[in-house]
Amino acid sequence: MKIVSAQEFDLRREVEYGSPEQNAAVQQIVQRVKQEGDAALLQYTAQFDRVELTASQLRVTEEELQAAYAQVEPSFITAITLAANNIRQFHQKQKRNSWMDLQPDGSLLGQIIRPLQRVGVYVPGGKAAYPSSVLMNVIPAQVAGVPQIVMVTPPATGGTEGIDPYILVTAAEAGVTEIYRIGGAQAIAALAYGTDSIEPVDKICGPGNIYVALAKREVYGVVDIDSIAGPSEIVVLADHLANPVYVAADLLSQAEHDEMASAILVTSSQEMADAVAAEVERQLESLPRREIATASIRNYGAIIVTRDIAEGIRIVNRLAPEHLEIMVDQPMNVLGMIENAGAIFLGNYSSEPVGDYFAGPNHIIPTNGTARFSSPVDVDDFIKKSSMIYYSKEALLTNGNIIMELARHEGLEGHARAIQVRLEQEGS
Amino acid sequence: MKIVSAQEFDLRREVEYGSPEQNAAVQQIVQRVKQEGDAALLQYTAQFDRVELTASQLRVTEEELQAAYAQVEPSFITAITLAANNIRQFHQKQKRNSWMDLQPDGSLLGQIIRPLQRVGVYVPGGKAAYPSSVLMNVIPAQVAGVPQIVMVTPPATGGTEGIDPYILVTAAEAGVTEIYRIGGAQAIAALAYGTDSIEPVDKICGPGNIYVALAKREVYGVVDIDSIAGPSEIVVLADHLANPVYVAADLLSQAEHDEMASAILVTSSQEMADAVAAEVERQLESLPRREIATASIRNYGAIIVTRDIAEGIRIVNRLAPEHLEIMVDQPMNVLGMIENAGAIFLGNYSSEPVGDYFAGPNHIIPTNGTARFSSPVDVDDFIKKSSMIYYSKEALLTNGNIIMELARHEGLEGHARAIQVRLEQEGS
Repeated sequence: MKIVSAQEFDLRREVEYGSPEQNAAVQQIVQRVKQEGDAALLQYTAQFDRVELTASQLRVTEEELQAAYAQVEPSFITAITLAANNIRQFHQKQKRNSWMDLQPDGSLLGQIIRPLQRVGVYVPGGKAAYPSSVLMNVIPAQVAGVPQIVMVTPPATGGTEGIDPYILVTAAEAGVTEIYRIGGAQAIAALAYGTDSIEPVDKICGPGNIYVALAKREVYGVVDIDSIAGPSEIVVLADHLANPVYVAADLLSQAEHDEMASAILVTSSQEMADAVAAEVERQLESLPRREIATASIRNYGAIIVTRDIAEGIRIVNRLAPEHLEIMVDQPMNVLGMIENAGAIFLGNYSSEPVGDYFAGPNHIIPTNGTARFSSPVDVDDFIKKSSMIYYSKEALLTNGNIIMELARHEGLEGHARAIQVRLEQEGS
Repeated sequence: MKIVSAQEFDLRREVEYGSPEQNAAVQQIVQRVKQEGDAALLQYTAQFDRVELTASQLRVTEEELQAAYAQVEPSFITAITLAANNIRQFHQKQKRNSWMDLQPDGSLLGQIIRPLQRVGVYVPGGKAAYPSSVLMNVIPAQVAGVPQIVMVTPPATGGTEGIDPYILVTAAEAGVTEIYRIGGAQAIAALAYGTDSIEPVDKICGPGNIYVALAKREVYGVVDIDSIAGPSEIVVLADHLANPVYVAADLLSQAEHDEMASAILVTSSQEMADAVAAEVERQLESLPRREIATASIRNYGAIIVTRDIAEGIRIVNRLAPEHLEIMVDQPMNVLGMIENAGAIFLGNYSSEPVGDYFAGPNHIIPTNGTARFSSPVDVDDFIKKSSMIYYSKEALLTNGNIIMELARHEGLEGHARAIQVRLEQEGS
């Protein structure tokens, strides 16, 4: 693992916007599903997934869901239930109430907080169908109170319409209310515009390939979408007391995700840098995904040796990593100085997979330096707010002239007159 | 004003994405400012604003700010201060604390809430420079605790570098910390990438022309941006007891904004429909901006007569208007059934301009049906959240095997091993 200076390093990588051909293909798919509904949806499913379905087969039935439970070992159901409970408990603490501010003049001002009505969650097919991602997308919506949570996931390619039973069980445990066996840009278009078989949603979230990502961008505005995640990142901030075996294992748990993933150690100790570099090599040898992890470490991994922890903190804040592990003697002493990081793992036992799967906070976290201005997925992503203004007659009579002055200053006489007609009729 | 059926009507209008030429021009401006910094910024300012500046003249000085106060009448300063106080008071109630959930096994899970570090607010020049928009963009950021709030606004075209003194005074009262006399796509690029004279920001907000809107979309991802507002909208829901003079005045206060603005009355009373239609004609006659308002009413205005208020509520929820006024006998009885509306004004005295200028809630509100899934600007738009996980040794020993099972199910052995190395070293 290479040892570099802080100046040489930046976590940011180019964001993929798709080729002109991919964009054109996605636009055509979205337009056709918008205009032709189920017919286009079924035709694209036959074309891309090589599964021939009728409209009545799109939705997964209760019987299929029950059959999935029978196919899955009980220990998986126990594990996923425990994880779901932790995630639900953490997200429940994010819930907020509508509120009112009662003014002495009788006016009531407030903010009304409501769940979105209907949310769509995309789940990729094949090896990219991660139960943990289902939990992390669905549970915040369910805790927010979204009454209709729709999952879409492509049927298994090549003639069967089956969906991974682990995904079905996880969806049911998480609180999904409808499941459709569709995927790709056509599924995103169906969620955004609706078809005879599928009601449109208010928001679409969940990961997908480049076609799914481009389709989400295409329908943004018609519906809300989540942000498009970049490759995953970890930064470990360690002093001389950290355990190099743990540090190396945590760096590799990130590096194994993707050749574009980035794993970085920032340490105040040259000995730690050398020990972790050696441990990474040693642990890589037996890692099943060592080709991916090796490429990630070689291209986007680094060890940065700093004068002290304070310099390390400045580097962390500049990188604004998705995941930050703080493995120093007193991690709570560092926490207050971390300005930019999506999720912060403190101490020797808070290994990143603890958060990926189980502890409770969401594992969908801003990448590519965007933790400077954005946040992990939470209940706020599935609510909408309305302002409420109940102005009293007294408040209007008291403040009407000021409001008219401000409106007239902006040249908006119609605004001023909406106040004036009331002052004329109601004033003494 | 035309009377139509509910089915005929939809508030949604096409969103403007700019011509290919406009997009290409904006991309070029953004790239040049990114690469050449101040030199490009000054050159574009000379070209588009026809003002020759040096880099040291970009920033508005304390002396200029003091001079602006001397040019503005005291009654304006009083009015803007009162409005700012109300807006600040309302937004202060939105503030949230970082929190922790303390688990019996010693683990600490939490959400850390912090302000963004540096925010840029765009303020258009000329007649579109609205002091109220300055308040509504700046105060939520200031209440959130953003330490650096940068305003940019173009210099007056054609040789003077002056900025409207009312805007300068409002900016100072709202809490702006730096002001630069730059505008257009070049100002957005400077805020996103920084130049020698201007440090880059984390988020850019505020309205602007099509070039500003396209530039914001171009730099999105490098920085956060606010959503791009469509033309303004009002829906008034009224029964037979509403005052048609007030209803008509409020419809016109929206219609005068823009020929694309939309003003709609939904009423359960045919008499009310007729009376409001007549009042709109009467009030239009003397309205200074009657040409704009007439075009808006003709093209995007309507009166929808419903069987009853319940049907009216269903129409409102489908339209999801930016502004909703409820002028029925007991407006609080209706409030709970409003699912989709950006800002809700209740009763005879809550005329929309009360909220545009003064009451306290934000006047930047989702348009074009997006109130189904988005919200008025508030303090949440200027904060970022980080998850915090401090897992105890006991928690890891108890749950480690479950976490490993979930990781291995997803084929991520490296994730499992990050847990396993700890269980091996720490377990009994």
